[in-house]
Amino acid sequence: MDLKIIEELSVQSPEKVVMLVLDGLGGLPDPETGRTELETAVIPNLDAVAAEGICGLADPIAPGITPGSGPGHLALFGYDPLAYQIGRGALEAVGIGIELGPDDMAARGNFCTVDDKGIITDRRAGRISTEKCAELCKLLDGMTIEEIDIKLHPVREHRFVAVFSGRDLQIELTESDPSRTGVAPLEIKAEHAIARNTATIINKFIAKAKEVLSAHHPANMILLRGFAKRPQLPSMKEIYKLNPLAIAAYPMYRGLASLVGMAVADTGAGIEEKIKTLRKNYLKYDFFFLHIKLTDTAGEDGDFSRKVKLLEQVDAALPALAALKPDVLVITGDHSTPAVFGGHSWHPVPVAILSKYCRTDGVKEFSEKAFICGGMGRIHATDIMPLAMANARKLTKFGA
Amino acid sequence: MDLKIIEELSVQSPEKVVMLVLDGLGGLPDPETGRTELETAVIPNLDAVAAEGICGLADPIAPGITPGSGPGHLALFGYDPLAYQIGRGALEAVGIGIELGPDDMAARGNFCTVDDKGIITDRRAGRISTEKCAELCKLLDGMTIEEIDIKLHPVREHRFVAVFSGRDLQIELTESDPSRTGVAPLEIKAEHAIARNTATIINKFIAKAKEVLSAHHPANMILLRGFAKRPQLPSMKEIYKLNPLAIAAYPMYRGLASLVGMAVADTGAGIEEKIKTLRKNYLKYDFFFLHIKLTDTAGEDGDFSRKVKLLEQVDAALPALAALKPDVLVITGDHSTPAVFGGHSWHPVPVAILSKYCRTDGVKEFSEKAFICGGMGRIHATDIMPLAMANARKLTKFGA
Repeated sequence: MDLKIIEELSVQSPEKVVMLVLDGLGGLPDPETGRTELETAVIPNLDAVAAEGICGLADPIAPGITPGSGPGHLALFGYDPLAYQIGRGALEAVGIGIELGPDDMAARGNFCTVDDKGIITDRRAGRISTEKCAELCKLLDGMTIEEIDIKLHPVREHRFVAVFSGRDLQIELTESDPSRTGVAPLEIKAEHAIARNTATIINKFIAKAKEVLSAHHPANMILLRGFAKRPQLPSMKEIYKLNPLAIAAYPMYRGLASLVGMAVADTGAGIEEKIKTLRKNYLKYDFFFLHIKLTDTAGEDGDFSRKVKLLEQVDAALPALAALKPDVLVITGDHSTPAVFGGHSWHPVPVAILSKYCRTDGVKEFSEKAFICGGMGRIHATDIMPLAMANARKLTKFGA
Repeated sequence: MDLKIIEELSVQSPEKVVMLVLDGLGGLPDPETGRTELETAVIPNLDAVAAEGICGLADPIAPGITPGSGPGHLALFGYDPLAYQIGRGALEAVGIGIELGPDDMAARGNFCTVDDKGIITDRRAGRISTEKCAELCKLLDGMTIEEIDIKLHPVREHRFVAVFSGRDLQIELTESDPSRTGVAPLEIKAEHAIARNTATIINKFIAKAKEVLSAHHPANMILLRGFAKRPQLPSMKEIYKLNPLAIAAYPMYRGLASLVGMAVADTGAGIEEKIKTLRKNYLKYDFFFLHIKLTDTAGEDGDFSRKVKLLEQVDAALPALAALKPDVLVITGDHSTPAVFGGHSWHPVPVAILSKYCRTDGVKEFSEKAFICGGMGRIHATDIMPLAMANARKLTKFGA
């Protein structure tokens, strides 16, 4: 749905919406039992939400397309992830809590190993420790080249974020990472004439970095890619007239929420602590994005039974959330991460909406298979926000 | 889904995908029994694919729109048939294995009968034999009019393809076939000024043809329509990084496959022979389009029980295909051809995907009605390729 139209239809109202996002929620059957993580877990409270609410399956992007965390969440917040693409560098910056200003350009960086002829022998510098990475970042941090300030932020192991700050930086650049060993790092080139000056500056920085790192084998060179600026996203306040709060512990999700204009709460990482944070802030906001990361991590690790246990933990905490009696409760995920697949996947994600006006369907169980017959059918994830808004009586009539 | 994005996400992998297309697969209930062709046929192997796989219904174009064979297949190969339209002349040329060059324009032709006043009395010239058609085509073949070379290719009975070759041919032309008898053939007119010269040349050719054919009653005149050039389609190799093989016996489907960049195998027409061809080529390719024509023909002929028998024949051959253990098996059709309807129809087409990661649903039976509750829901036929690619782990993540 066109956000311009949603913006025209949306009105402020006292009703409160809680969107509980279990990262990587959807699963696949364990080949032994034929049951998915949700079908295996004992989750009476989630089942009750399914029974009283309306259920369905949501495609974050499109059938067959596996979403990254950025696009998956944008879709949940109602932004078409194909229309609003966040550059890799910007997302990596967001992921470690860096707020990019309008004159900032971020890039993803790797420390790598080159031989004495400058040929890459290891694109990850033997996966140096995060501590070593931080130490090396300090050596390169704080340079200024032709009035462009350069800051380096360690991420994890060999990975860092480089932030270039100054006027007229242009992102139309090729990357220096050749994506393979046995060749030299590539020169950064401008993809459009407008970015030529930026390319020159980046290449000078890379040359400097090589000098500085020469004695730091195996991390004796850097590779840069994914040049990007802060994406321009209309805020949820404008579009939905909401006063939204994000309750998330991981920097990536806190960053994503702030990109769409949410306030971001200080919170502990566990579900109980997040519900406590929700309770504490319940009167001050009218939309709450409550993010649970560990279900995804368990899926990524291929740990079926851990994902099952985490679902049961969330289920056990649910009554404390329900006690707040939100006018609209949405429970869904940003994408599926089936443990038997061991990573994000394209499978549509279960979504349940519970409200006074949800039009309860016949589904009794919170699971992928049960939700196929849910009242929402198979929807696009960007439909979830308009549905939540409508259930909260925050969307007026279209046309007379 | 935008093919540009699919192209960015797709990667080569060893996994093999077999797409079995039963032309005209979907049906309608026999009014006597209330059961469709699929519901009447005894098809335990197809039922097993439905039970183990994920099922759904696909719209080749859009609800209510009946597809021709060209658009139906383009959608199955992932090309939006509204964005990629193949002109009738080009499709007819493709259908008899003619490869059109960039300076070629094709038209569909009929031999017809006119009386001594030039009025059409039979638009099909009494359905002359294909041999007679070939003989008459020879009489008209090889003319050159104003530097435009004209070649005629017999198709079947009264039908032929005319190929005009030369510079500046323009397809914006009206047709000469009035679609009824009792009137004279229409003059070809330019729909845009740019095509005026082409129209003049075609009209000269038609006049010449009338002269040459004057003594060949009942085939004493020709009708031309569907002027078209070769469509520009990105190849499946580019988009999907696949090495695809078409196993089809009818020229139309062989031609369509070659338009999207598939290799086309020599094969016998029966399903067993096609599976033999599949087996022989199994190591050399990673995507196989296996086309079964006769299910559609039976539907077109309104022959319910023949369609049922053909479905049972396909079912009986399925274990030989399954023995190859393709990583992803897709079974679907290019459109519905219900026998009680006697032609292509708009009804969505059953589609089943079987793979290790398909997320099995609760469907147990391969039928239109059972598939309504399938896990894929109701999808667009262009979603089938991304889903097949995803199931074969040939699509990387969108965004980070």
